[in-house]
Amino acid sequence: MAVRYELIKTCSQTGARLGRLHTPHGTIDTPVFMPVGTLATVKTMSPEELKEMGSGIILSNTYHLFLRPGHDVVKEAGGLHSFMNWDRAILTDSGGFQVFSLSDLRKITEEGVSFRSHLSGEPLFISPEKSIEIQNALGADIIMAFDECPPYPADRDYVKKSMERTYRWLKRCVDAHERPEEQGLFGIVQGGMYGDLRKESARQITSIDLPGYAIGGLSVGEPKELMYEALEETTPLLPVDKPRYLMGVGSPDALVEGVMRGVDMFDCVLPTRIARNGTTMTSEGRVVVRNAKYTRDFGPLDPECDCYTCRNYSRAYLRHLFKAEETLGLRLTTYHNLYFLLKLMEGVRQAIQEDRLQDFRNQFFTKYYGSMNSDAMRRGF
Amino acid sequence: MAVRYELIKTCSQTGARLGRLHTPHGTIDTPVFMPVGTLATVKTMSPEELKEMGSGIILSNTYHLFLRPGHDVVKEAGGLHSFMNWDRAILTDSGGFQVFSLSDLRKITEEGVSFRSHLSGEPLFISPEKSIEIQNALGADIIMAFDECPPYPADRDYVKKSMERTYRWLKRCVDAHERPEEQGLFGIVQGGMYGDLRKESARQITSIDLPGYAIGGLSVGEPKELMYEALEETTPLLPVDKPRYLMGVGSPDALVEGVMRGVDMFDCVLPTRIARNGTTMTSEGRVVVRNAKYTRDFGPLDPECDCYTCRNYSRAYLRHLFKAEETLGLRLTTYHNLYFLLKLMEGVRQAIQEDRLQDFRNQFFTKYYGSMNSDAMRRGF
Ligand SMILES: [Zn+2]
Ligand SMILES: [Zn+2]
Repeated sequence: MAVRYELIKTCSQTGARLGRLHTPHGTIDTPVFMPVGTLATVKTMSPEELKEMGSGIILSNTYHLFLRPGHDVVKEAGGLHSFMNWDRAILTDSGGFQVFSLSDLRKITEEGVSFRSHLSGEPLFISPEKSIEIQNALGADIIMAFDECPPYPADRDYVKKSMERTYRWLKRCVDAHERPEEQGLFGIVQGGMYGDLRKESARQITSIDLPGYAIGGLSVGEPKELMYEALEETTPLLPVDKPRYLMGVGSPDALVEGVMRGVDMFDCVLPTRIARNGTTMTSEGRVVVRNAKYTRDFGPLDPECDCYTCRNYSRAYLRHLFKAEETLGLRLTTYHNLYFLLKLMEGVRQAIQEDRLQDFRNQFFTKYYGSMNSDAMRRGF
Repeated sequence: MAVRYELIKTCSQTGARLGRLHTPHGTIDTPVFMPVGTLATVKTMSPEELKEMGSGIILSNTYHLFLRPGHDVVKEAGGLHSFMNWDRAILTDSGGFQVFSLSDLRKITEEGVSFRSHLSGEPLFISPEKSIEIQNALGADIIMAFDECPPYPADRDYVKKSMERTYRWLKRCVDAHERPEEQGLFGIVQGGMYGDLRKESARQITSIDLPGYAIGGLSVGEPKELMYEALEETTPLLPVDKPRYLMGVGSPDALVEGVMRGVDMFDCVLPTRIARNGTTMTSEGRVVVRNAKYTRDFGPLDPECDCYTCRNYSRAYLRHLFKAEETLGLRLTTYHNLYFLLKLMEGVRQAIQEDRLQDFRNQFFTKYYGSMNSDAMRRGF
């Protein structure tokens, strides 16, 4: 098997899991947050910077790389690791989510999805087989099954049908997968916000022995409470000896709450996207560096952070860079935000090790959100 | 004296000068190319990257920093070095060139220049005293006199008047300078393309003992032959024991030709500006990485270059990053272009050391421009 999960221990206070994910490009401590490198680059960052901050695995997007530069180009370059100069682990999504959320004029049949490129309008088609062909060409360590991700809200009938199709598509993905010794294929549990469908999907998907399982269809606009409920209905049905990956989640509260509900892996564009807008996550909550009040604030972005940005630059300088639209500003806030989430996960792992994740959560939330209840969190990230 | 030039030797083949520039923030081997950090950042680069490529001195712009964040903010931050996290040498221009080229509705009097900010429209005024006050606040190692830079073409009367005013303004700059022990003030020779005025200006400006002299009013749109003629009329009149700085020049041919005419220092936005447009300078001439022909070119940008970009990335990847408008693309081409010019200057220094700069020039031009005559160069950089 290309990918193997090792459960180290469970937090007695919360049930959260401490583990290790072994991949062909290194071993990753879990729970882990994976920075997103949509187009074969984590926006504004160099691979060396990601390594320096301790990132062992990043995500990249099948749909985007299929459109440009094309998976054939990446394959000719020797695969994604070689193409983008990243020798640690990579996970590619299946393209399913982007086909449904970005493309125009999509038409879903049992065979697959016809759609038009959101860039050129060109008619394209992705099936489970095509998604796996692309992902085999890209060569990531972990690849994802091609699924149908329903929007929120969606009616029960539609969610049930798409969930069943996701299961049939998974079987086709398994059959199409040509590099199982080098790439671990994860299945994706769907079922929307319907508890019984979630459970049924979990049973279906885990009936196939795979190196890992993802929880999809969450973080699509539903209230966080619903997401946590869906998690509680799903993770107990997933095998303990396989990693669980919650897709598209990256706010500090949801990361911690997800871990407490048994999740091992997360990815999200949130930290990098808000960074490019000048919004940062600090130990005392959000700081929007463009704000005029930082004009003469010569202290670090986050006094408790020891990242490259916080060690070397002031809020005043960051604000200046953003006002002047200088690229270095984007780099510095992106670096800090990713470092912040990676350090948060390091703290989470330490707390699991010491059976005190509930205490860690309460302390962190009180400081970050000004309260440990979810009202404060609902206001934002 | 804050800044001291040490002449090491003169190339017997060309008369070019090998030297050292001693500043409060380190010693720089000359001839030197200085990357431009207009707004207290060399666009897309980190200070560590500039150091890694061997840059010992960068330039920053008084006019731009005066507008934002304001020299008072930079002063409160502990000066430009501290504000931007750069502990090597900095040179600030006087703002004169930008006041004339960027601002609206300027009005020049003997007292100074009234203008409107090109950002806000706000009415502003810079005099020789104000320029020095700003530069004293910024705290660069080398500061420049506030001069009037005539456009090209300009009639003789106007050039003569502005040249004489530049001399009077220089005397006011010297009087206004409050930190001569920490910052070296350079005077600027003007005189446009009029040989006799150039000579007169050189005599006027060098009549004041300063740690260095610049040649201004060139590279403003005139044919390169005229620039070289003006240099030939100017540099012989400058003291041999002081550095000569040719402002705004950064194409490979003009750097080499400038050195051969006795210049020690250069700056230009060219390498960084064209890099952000996907145009690079390589040992075999220009490479425009966006071009479709590089889609499957998995070789390095410049096979003879050992910079970070060329060691780790392919032309295909660079092209992909530019097509996808990814920031890393700007970083990688900027890094390479600056490295290329810094290495070119290293080669130039080595050639002076070995009395073979004319041979070096011919070899380099033949390879870079496909010919060693100036027709090839006139086609571009
Ligand atoms: Zn930080
Ligand atoms: Zn290079």
